[in-house]
Amino acid sequence: MASYTFREFDLETALAWTLRLGLSHISLKSMHLPLESSTIEVEEIGRQVRADGLELYGCGVVYMTSEAEVENAFAYAAAGGMQVIIGVPEHDLLPLVERKVAEYDIRLAIHNHGPGDQRYPTPQSAFELIREMDPRMGLCIDIGHTMRSGIDPAEAARLYADRVHDVHIKDVSAATREGSTVEIGRGVIDIPRFLQTMLDTGYGGVLALEHEKDGRDPLAGAAESIGFVRGVLSTIL
Amino acid sequence: MASYTFREFDLETALAWTLRLGLSHISLKSMHLPLESSTIEVEEIGRQVRADGLELYGCGVVYMTSEAEVENAFAYAAAGGMQVIIGVPEHDLLPLVERKVAEYDIRLAIHNHGPGDQRYPTPQSAFELIREMDPRMGLCIDIGHTMRSGIDPAEAARLYADRVHDVHIKDVSAATREGSTVEIGRGVIDIPRFLQTMLDTGYGGVLALEHEKDGRDPLAGAAESIGFVRGVLSTIL
Repeated sequence: MASYTFREFDLETALAWTLRLGLSHISLKSMHLPLESSTIEVEEIGRQVRADGLELYGCGVVYMTSEAEVENAFAYAAAGGMQVIIGVPEHDLLPLVERKVAEYDIRLAIHNHGPGDQRYPTPQSAFELIREMDPRMGLCIDIGHTMRSGIDPAEAARLYADRVHDVHIKDVSAATREGSTVEIGRGVIDIPRFLQTMLDTGYGGVLALEHEKDGRDPLAGAAESIGFVRGVLSTIL
Repeated sequence: MASYTFREFDLETALAWTLRLGLSHISLKSMHLPLESSTIEVEEIGRQVRADGLELYGCGVVYMTSEAEVENAFAYAAAGGMQVIIGVPEHDLLPLVERKVAEYDIRLAIHNHGPGDQRYPTPQSAFELIREMDPRMGLCIDIGHTMRSGIDPAEAARLYADRVHDVHIKDVSAATREGSTVEIGRGVIDIPRFLQTMLDTGYGGVLALEHEKDGRDPLAGAAESIGFVRGVLSTIL
């Protein structure tokens, strides 16, 4: 679960709902774990999440616009015991980020935001910048924004398979800039094909639901989406 | 949707949630449309449901323990424009029910309730009593109670295919008397196999979700269940 789904609710509710949906992993967005938290505060939240029975595997989306923000992001992720930062670093900070992924052994997963995003509109736009870098420099493929860019998410996942470090799974109403998030299965993404591709490429990471719709009442849509993914997987596995 | 899922809520909420889940058909249980309603009241509810965009295709589960209750059930279903009564008639009333299905051209779908049910524990127990009757005399296979009886619902659906007039779809935690309803996909029923069987047998009726779990907070579990079914169907269709 990408906790942004539950952005209008507190951490306790986000954890309770994630557990209710039968999920095992969560990444926290800043409203649930502020980036300015002290090391001790982040460590404490990490313990709390794990005591509840969830793996705090990552954070994000984390924007990095300065060297200090890069340093902070990695210290924060390390304090939380996280394995991946879903992030949006400015292009000129990528060399520093590459040094940090090696120093901390924490992966970066660059998140594409679709048409209108000046930094990383598509998975390809991120991949081109990190392809020669440390393999821990990779992508969080947001399949909704990818589809909104007119790109088949399954094709992107196959092309950049060895650099996919996280996935934001969702569905969108149209394969255009105007597309918006809908419950998985009600939109235009071929979810069975995407999931089959993830199996074929041996993806070993997390599929995190990021359900932007109905921010003030997100549980039913999140549940329907999770059910759909499980239904597809139970059929193709 | 079998409105029993929303039994702790009023009709307006049951209709709103059914629509939110993207469903098209609903059957009403008596708390949402009392069996003692006047013809005019039932007609009015039928109009209201259809004005909301749902087809009021049936009612139930309706128990019939006297001739008067049989007469009432069919008059009620006719007033609501329903095509099927999901019912539990006493065995000795079946000849009267058979005359009524012909008189009204409304089908009966006998609902099995699993271990402990003295009348119709299994689909077979109902089928044996109606196999020689009018073909509009049939079954509502409750796949949860069928599984709790240790019977594969797909096998039952195949055996009695020409008499399956409704289905209560759900999942259960165990294939024993102690099994209880869980979100579809979290239990022991092979849902892909069941749905493939319904396709193979050319089932033309409704798959109605009857989600007994979390009666006071049922929407998330209902949504997850509907998502799962859609995910399976999107993969096998």
